[in-house]
Amino acid sequence: MIITISREFGSGGRELGKRLADELGLAYYDREILTELSRQEGLSEDYLEKVLESPSGIGYAISYSRSFAMIQNIDTAPQLLAKQHNIIKMLARKGDCVIVGRGADAILKEYKPFRIFVHADMQSRIQRCVSRGTKDEDLSEKALQKKIKKIDKARAENYEFVSELPWGDKRAYDLIINTTDLEIKGIVPAVASYIRAWLDR
Amino acid sequence: MIITISREFGSGGRELGKRLADELGLAYYDREILTELSRQEGLSEDYLEKVLESPSGIGYAISYSRSFAMIQNIDTAPQLLAKQHNIIKMLARKGDCVIVGRGADAILKEYKPFRIFVHADMQSRIQRCVSRGTKDEDLSEKALQKKIKKIDKARAENYEFVSELPWGDKRAYDLIINTTDLEIKGIVPAVASYIRAWLDR
Repeated sequence: MIITISREFGSGGRELGKRLADELGLAYYDREILTELSRQEGLSEDYLEKVLESPSGIGYAISYSRSFAMIQNIDTAPQLLAKQHNIIKMLARKGDCVIVGRGADAILKEYKPFRIFVHADMQSRIQRCVSRGTKDEDLSEKALQKKIKKIDKARAENYEFVSELPWGDKRAYDLIINTTDLEIKGIVPAVASYIRAWLDR
Repeated sequence: MIITISREFGSGGRELGKRLADELGLAYYDREILTELSRQEGLSEDYLEKVLESPSGIGYAISYSRSFAMIQNIDTAPQLLAKQHNIIKMLARKGDCVIVGRGADAILKEYKPFRIFVHADMQSRIQRCVSRGTKDEDLSEKALQKKIKKIDKARAENYEFVSELPWGDKRAYDLIINTTDLEIKGIVPAVASYIRAWLDR
């Protein structure tokens, strides 16, 4: 049983993934994928995040890091993306799990994962960002809206590397959940039941 | 509690609606809407279906029926559509229910219904059409594919009359269910649980 969760930034997808993993007794992978890549590459998670999770991050990193990479003998961005895909496949081979983001639904196609997409309206996502934000962040509506759009753009662009369907296209998912004005906690048992029924098909 | 079900033709949306109504003890409206319109207008359900559920049906009926309508003193297609909307609103006022199709999610916006969209891949929809088909129908793959596309086109077109969002756009729905290779019966309890959790939000 592999469950993949794709999500708009601020829609509560990560929380849903974590809670589903607890409910179903599964391993949970999210930031862990970046940590493993960081370990393999000897590069900071912050740098990797910039390369892999910013719009045109791939392009940016190619131009930025090409000469740098040659001097330092580190991987270029497309190589990093390929290595991230290998880590996701390695985790899937280890056993049942929930994987959040990073195009895992497409990368792990052969495993026939249960594929969830989570979204919400802008207002609800801004509220969620505010409620989980830290003092260091600019939590103004304007700043958060900009951040949400930027991260979603990166996710959509990166998804194109692994899927023929656009990010968020309903044909690519088994269940699409609108979390506008919803508390994630409340829907977890029902989503877990749905997944069990789907597996029994 | 009002639940609206929009669905691609052949995706099992009608069965899901019927079973959900049974599970939750709600009234169920689908064909009943056409029957009521037929009663009000003194026109056959078949004629109304042709006008309201064919691509460009509205346009067709305007040109076809304008002179006819004047002679016969019957409503033109846009008037029929408006009357159908009124019937849907009247049914919603009567109490909790499940309404399948006809843009009810948008027409009943003020009731804040729980809005489901049901879809499946073409192969799975063809199979579903074959399994419920009758001897009188052309059940060849080619004929069914043509029929599916034609009816979906009409549904998408009619939806434009009542919503700013395209038919099937995820922002217009609370839950989008992919029924490819699924037996509807198996997912009903989980979907009902999800709706209960959503109502408790």
